[in-house]
Amino acid sequence: MNRKMVFHICGQMMLLEAVLMLLPLVTALFYGEKCVFSFVASMGIALALGAVMMLANKPKDTVIYSREGFCITALTWVIFSLVGSLPFVISGEIPSFVDAFFETVSGFTTTGASILRDIESMSKGLLMWRSFTHWVGGMGILVMVMAVLPMTTDRSIHIMRAEMPGPIVGKLVPRVRQTAKILYVIYIGLTLLQIALLLAGGMNLFEAMIHTFGTAGTGGFSCNSDSIAGYSPYIQWVITIFMFIFGINFNLYYLALIRRFKSVFTSEELWAYTGIVAVSVAAVAINIRPLYESLGETLRYAAFQVMTIVSTSGFATADFNLWPQLSRSILCLLMFIGACAGSTAGGLKVSRVVMLFKAVKRELKKMLHPRSVSAVRFEGKPLEDSTLSGVCIYFALYMAITLGVFLLISFEPFDFETKFTSVLACFNNVGPGLGAVGPIGNYADYTAFSKIVLSVSMLLGRLEIYPIIFLLSPSVWFRKR
Amino acid sequence: MNRKMVFHICGQMMLLEAVLMLLPLVTALFYGEKCVFSFVASMGIALALGAVMMLANKPKDTVIYSREGFCITALTWVIFSLVGSLPFVISGEIPSFVDAFFETVSGFTTTGASILRDIESMSKGLLMWRSFTHWVGGMGILVMVMAVLPMTTDRSIHIMRAEMPGPIVGKLVPRVRQTAKILYVIYIGLTLLQIALLLAGGMNLFEAMIHTFGTAGTGGFSCNSDSIAGYSPYIQWVITIFMFIFGINFNLYYLALIRRFKSVFTSEELWAYTGIVAVSVAAVAINIRPLYESLGETLRYAAFQVMTIVSTSGFATADFNLWPQLSRSILCLLMFIGACAGSTAGGLKVSRVVMLFKAVKRELKKMLHPRSVSAVRFEGKPLEDSTLSGVCIYFALYMAITLGVFLLISFEPFDFETKFTSVLACFNNVGPGLGAVGPIGNYADYTAFSKIVLSVSMLLGRLEIYPIIFLLSPSVWFRKR
Repeated sequence: MNRKMVFHICGQMMLLEAVLMLLPLVTALFYGEKCVFSFVASMGIALALGAVMMLANKPKDTVIYSREGFCITALTWVIFSLVGSLPFVISGEIPSFVDAFFETVSGFTTTGASILRDIESMSKGLLMWRSFTHWVGGMGILVMVMAVLPMTTDRSIHIMRAEMPGPIVGKLVPRVRQTAKILYVIYIGLTLLQIALLLAGGMNLFEAMIHTFGTAGTGGFSCNSDSIAGYSPYIQWVITIFMFIFGINFNLYYLALIRRFKSVFTSEELWAYTGIVAVSVAAVAINIRPLYESLGETLRYAAFQVMTIVSTSGFATADFNLWPQLSRSILCLLMFIGACAGSTAGGLKVSRVVMLFKAVKRELKKMLHPRSVSAVRFEGKPLEDSTLSGVCIYFALYMAITLGVFLLISFEPFDFETKFTSVLACFNNVGPGLGAVGPIGNYADYTAFSKIVLSVSMLLGRLEIYPIIFLLSPSVWFRKR
Repeated sequence: MNRKMVFHICGQMMLLEAVLMLLPLVTALFYGEKCVFSFVASMGIALALGAVMMLANKPKDTVIYSREGFCITALTWVIFSLVGSLPFVISGEIPSFVDAFFETVSGFTTTGASILRDIESMSKGLLMWRSFTHWVGGMGILVMVMAVLPMTTDRSIHIMRAEMPGPIVGKLVPRVRQTAKILYVIYIGLTLLQIALLLAGGMNLFEAMIHTFGTAGTGGFSCNSDSIAGYSPYIQWVITIFMFIFGINFNLYYLALIRRFKSVFTSEELWAYTGIVAVSVAAVAINIRPLYESLGETLRYAAFQVMTIVSTSGFATADFNLWPQLSRSILCLLMFIGACAGSTAGGLKVSRVVMLFKAVKRELKKMLHPRSVSAVRFEGKPLEDSTLSGVCIYFALYMAITLGVFLLISFEPFDFETKFTSVLACFNNVGPGLGAVGPIGNYADYTAFSKIVLSVSMLLGRLEIYPIIFLLSPSVWFRKR
């Protein structure tokens, strides 16, 4: 493996992280907070370490293959999380490094699981950093770099493939760099639109940015302990709708921009996603109808909570721990599914679920007619066998990791529901689960060991398993070209 | 579809069930119990209905294809469970038909989940019938018929394939009928051996038969409320060892009989199965060591409980609800795995788990070297891609059903752990779960709706999903040849 190239790029990434800390630094300066120093110190550390790492690993050969792509991606995410924890620790607002790491991984992976017991006591600069990590992690750290900097290699498709969620990564245009640029332009455009709409609803700029970052990255960090519950119905609906929007495959926005509306409206994944959302909202609304006064209120709570789970955001307007079991089971199931591939959401992704259904259907057919050959089509194109079996294997791995992580944290003294939904909520990048980690609870009472295990599972979920496996495989690191 | 042929064979099967009821009838006569009448009446009903069904459906064409094979198998199992419930209902010892159906399905599918609150109050004839269903269901109802009766068709491999568990059904010898016979001879031989060993340990014949049927079919019904806890360490060890024995692929016993020992000792599945058992026993023993006095006692409890879960029997010597969480999580995980394909056990089967691991390994390799072609080998032979993808799809379906059944019963007022492990314990044909359905609990408090849902999930587990799906597909039933 080209280790020099891997470390060289990771060094570059640390420089980028220092630059990203300018936003919370400005926020802290604006509010005149003490945490200014912690950002300056963290930026200094990131710049120094990054520069050393870059200069000490001058690669002679800049070609990268898929193994380098996976390792660059996984290592960047780990480094970003480690360095991103520094402001919390240096400021003393999250004294434990493990807690700060959990919170930062939760931010970058757009999970939104928190160890904070008292969000309101945090300084605004750190809250801004915490939510900004959602926005950065949502569309992808390396995809951002590709969009902004001229990469030294033109084989960066391997990096994009490792970082973008979904079973098939499609380039929008032949050049990777152009694709990354287009994605970020759409992402920034939608973000600005939501900020404007939230400002119009009476939020101040700080709140609007915090909640837009949480929505855009489908993360779910808020600056209030009661999340979105204290805001007006207008704001709740705006966030509901934008959670839906950010759960759609971004390729479709590009297709809409170049006026290929037919491709958008015939997207199987979009229809399946809309269908899942509609059916779930209806079922939950009927189930929780007796708890709320008006039909409008019921629908608002149902739609918000379904969208926040299926988009794997994890905001809250109600404590769904108190809802009837059927609704809670539906929400539990939605955690597995997640939203569309190529969006900022986590979970299995709707396209994988659809393909799994098609694979099962074909298998049933094959059992009745062993000699028949039938092609499976998805989004209008025939699916290759290797794609289909890749999706099935991904699902097997996904379930095995769900069970494995559950086993690892099972010694904790919480009840079964809390632990099981903690795993689902972290691995699928949702955030809150049920029981003690529900919308009004948090992950503070887990031991340091479990917090690390859950942090790793968040990274596994966000990067879709494989990059982390390769990062941890010595055979990948020490293999000669 | 050849519906006449399907109903004709199902009619034959009802006659067989009447014959099978002779054993409990004799037991009831021996003990001079009132339930004699209920067996006579049930046999009369089975004979009458069976004869009508057979004679009303004289098939002109006796050829069957895989769709008929699936439907014959699924329908036979449903009919056997319905008719098998009659003695319980007619005798009045289980007055509710749904309860009796649950208990009978649980028997035939070798699950061992019970709705009985007071086992000791049942008459011995009915207890014998209840345990005998385990033995009949263990090796397969239709496989038994094939071994005994000359089938009217020589295409009965389709039936065997539908009834025998495991990803690949191998015929031992070219003729299906001979294979069925060999399997049953081994099964009867091992059963007699265990009865003799239990008699030697001081059990009376009734108890020895009840517990051997429960072990051989990996079912787990006992005639005591405290299952095996009251018996001597010798008896507990005999049952532990025989649970291991009945969890091994029966093909291996045939290979041993014809002295092909090398094939036996190089069986990958056998090694994996032994490894899983050894590691689990060690882990549980270390974990529960502080709870018991001597090391021998600790090992006995650990080995018994691991074997009872991994073989999906479901006997109990200890209330593992009271064990530390790590042990309970391990037991939970073992429920998924189950024992070997081609044994009487349930669960995913070890061979599937091994193949899934190999599929994942190949996928990882393929991601690093997209153009490489690597064959996966299992049991010394290269695995076809279609077998491998079939295993992955089976796993996806398996997990989807686990979640779906959980959703269906999630309205019940029990805690999450009880409901989740109820699904695992029924679908994997284990029997007892954790929480309220633990070793000292039972399923009596579930609503009738949930009992039916869980009964269907037991059938789905025992017949490995596909036959039940085909049974419920109108398109299969009404399709012309």
